Amino acid sequence: MAVYTEVSDEELQAFLRHYDLGEVTSFKGIAEGVENSNYLLRTTKGSYIMTLYEKRVRPEDLPYFLGLMDHLAGRGIRCPTPLRGRDGDALRLLCGRPAVIVSFLDGLWPRRILPEHCQKLGQAMAEMHLAGADFALNRENNLSVTGWRPLFEACAPSADQVQEGLADQLSEELTHLEKAWPEDLPGGVIHADLFPDNVFFLANELSGLIDFYFACNDFFAYDLAVCLNAWCFEPDRAFNITKARLMLQAYRRVRPISDQELEALPLLARGSALRFLLTRLYDLLNHPTGALVDPKDPLEYWHKLRFHQAVRGPGAYGLD
Amino acid sequence: MAVYTEVSDEELQAFLRHYDLGEVTSFKGIAEGVENSNYLLRTTKGSYIMTLYEKRVRPEDLPYFLGLMDHLAGRGIRCPTPLRGRDGDALRLLCGRPAVIVSFLDGLWPRRILPEHCQKLGQAMAEMHLAGADFALNRENNLSVTGWRPLFEACAPSADQVQEGLADQLSEELTHLEKAWPEDLPGGVIHADLFPDNVFFLANELSGLIDFYFACNDFFAYDLAVCLNAWCFEPDRAFNITKARLMLQAYRRVRPISDQELEALPLLARGSALRFLLTRLYDLLNHPTGALVDPKDPLEYWHKLRFHQAVRGPGAYGLD
Repeated sequence: MAVYTEVSDEELQAFLRHYDLGEVTSFKGIAEGVENSNYLLRTTKGSYIMTLYEKRVRPEDLPYFLGLMDHLAGRGIRCPTPLRGRDGDALRLLCGRPAVIVSFLDGLWPRRILPEHCQKLGQAMAEMHLAGADFALNRENNLSVTGWRPLFEACAPSADQVQEGLADQLSEELTHLEKAWPEDLPGGVIHADLFPDNVFFLANELSGLIDFYFACNDFFAYDLAVCLNAWCFEPDRAFNITKARLMLQAYRRVRPISDQELEALPLLARGSALRFLLTRLYDLLNHPTGALVDPKDPLEYWHKLRFHQAVRGPGAYGLD
Repeated sequence: MAVYTEVSDEELQAFLRHYDLGEVTSFKGIAEGVENSNYLLRTTKGSYIMTLYEKRVRPEDLPYFLGLMDHLAGRGIRCPTPLRGRDGDALRLLCGRPAVIVSFLDGLWPRRILPEHCQKLGQAMAEMHLAGADFALNRENNLSVTGWRPLFEACAPSADQVQEGLADQLSEELTHLEKAWPEDLPGGVIHADLFPDNVFFLANELSGLIDFYFACNDFFAYDLAVCLNAWCFEPDRAFNITKARLMLQAYRRVRPISDQELEALPLLARGSALRFLLTRLYDLLNHPTGALVDPKDPLEYWHKLRFHQAVRGPGAYGLD
C-alpha cells in the first residue's frame, strides 16, 4: 500500500501533454503495491494507471520490465501495456522519478484463494512462460541464490530478536541451498512475484497479470515454486495439496514439466521460501518509523520453509 | 491515506446483492482519507466509492452525515450521494463495519492552491451554507471550544517534547478562547473540514465537495475560519491576503457576512488553528508504530495560531 510521491497539478498537466488522452477527470492514489506510487488516472478517453518508480526499482531495469509487458501483451497475455507518448517513448520523468502510464486492467485479485484460482493461475503462468520465449532482453534474478547471502548477512545480527535461533537456522539452510541449487533447468522469462494481489479475476476467469517489476530470466520451475508458497498454503499454515495439484496439472497441459524440473521442485520451493523470508526479515528489521507500509510477517515463510524441508519428492505437491 | 479493512470476495458479493449495480469489474483501495477505508468500485453500470467507517466515526452520527449529503445533493450542491439498496437503506454492515456506496465525483483536488481556487471555494461554501438551512437533523460540533480542553489535557504532559514551552502556551490560548468564544453568531450546517483534499476542481471550476464526516451545526463563520487556515497560508508560512480576500468576497456575494461575524473572525481563526493543532498533536503523541498514516505536523498550526493572535481585525484578511 503506497503513494509516496505527490504529483502537483502543473506536473501532471505537463506530463500528460506528451499523450493524446483528452482531459483529466480524476486522479487518485491507489493503496496497492508496496514498491511504487500508483495512481488511477481517468480522462475523457478512458482509465489508466500511472506509476512512478520509487527508489527500490533500478531505472536501468525499466526497459526490461516495460519491454516485457509490451512483448507479452503483443502475444495475447493479458497484462498492462505501457502507453507511448507522441515522441514514441513510454518512459519519462515525473517529479524527478521515472514514470509511465499503462493500460487499465479490469478484474479483482482474490482475497480468498479457491482451488479454481490456482488452476487458472497454472495455465496463465505456462502461457506467459511460452510467450516470453522470444523476448530479446535479459535480466538476471538478483533475488535468487546468489542474492541471498548479502541479505542474510545484513539480517543475521538481529534475526534472533524475531525468533530464537533463527540466524543459525537460516545460515544452515542457505549453505545447503548454495551447494544444492540446480546448475541448469529449462528457463526463460519468469514473473518471480506472482502473489494473489498480482493476479486479477473476473467472474472466475483470470483477467490479467500485473506488477512485472521482479520479472527476470530464471528457471521456469522457480515461478512454480513461488506460487506453491504464495497460493497453496491455508491461513492455518496447512499446505493444500489439491490447490498445488490443480496448479501444476493446469501448467503442464500448456508447457510440459520435465522430470528434472519435478525433482528440483522441493528445493526450489525451499529457495523461494527463503527468498521471501529474507526480504521480509530485512524490511522488518529496517522498517522506518512512520513508514506507510506495514511490514509483512517473515515467520509466515519460516513455516513454509519448514514444510518444504520435510518434502521428499514432487508427490507432496500432488504430482508423481 | 488508508485502507484499514480488507473486504473478501464473498463479503463484497453479498453486500452488492443489495444493489442493482451490475457486475463488479474492479475494486481498488484508495490512498486518500485518513479516517475511513475507501474503495473505488467499478461495475458494468458505472463507478462508485465504497466507504467502510472505521472506529473514529461514531455510528450514531452516520444518519446525519448521509442525510446531509442526500439533502445537499437534492439542492444542487455537488457532493457524493449515498446509494440506496433495494430495501431502501443506504447504510449497512460490511466486515463488521458500517458501510455505504456513494456516487463517484469527477475532479481533482488542488495540490497547489491558486487564488481562483479560493474564490470558487468561497462561493461553494456559501451555497452549501444556504442549502443546509432546511436540513432537519442536528449535530453538535464536538471539536469546537468545549471539546478542546479534554484533548489539551490528554496532550499536555508530552506537549513540550514537540516544542519547548508548548503546553503552557496552549493552556493560555485555550483559557483565552474559552472566555472569549462568541455566544451567538449566525449558524447552521457547516462542513468543518474543507481542506484542499476535500474540494475537487475540473478545468478550474469547482466540481464537488467531499468528506462530510466532520459536518455539524455551528457558526457559519467557523467554516470560513477553517478555510482561512487551510487555504490561505503559503508553504513558506506567509499568510496570503489576496487568497483570503477572494474567498471572503466570493462568499459574501452569495451569503452576506454580518459585522458581528467579521469582528469574530480573528478569534474563530485562532480557535480553528488550535483545533487542528490539538488533534494533530494528539495523533502524533498517540501514533501507533506501523500505522498506515503519517502523522501531520502540529507545529504548522502553531505558526498559523501565532499569526491570528497578532491580527487586530478583519482587515488582516482583506476585508474591512
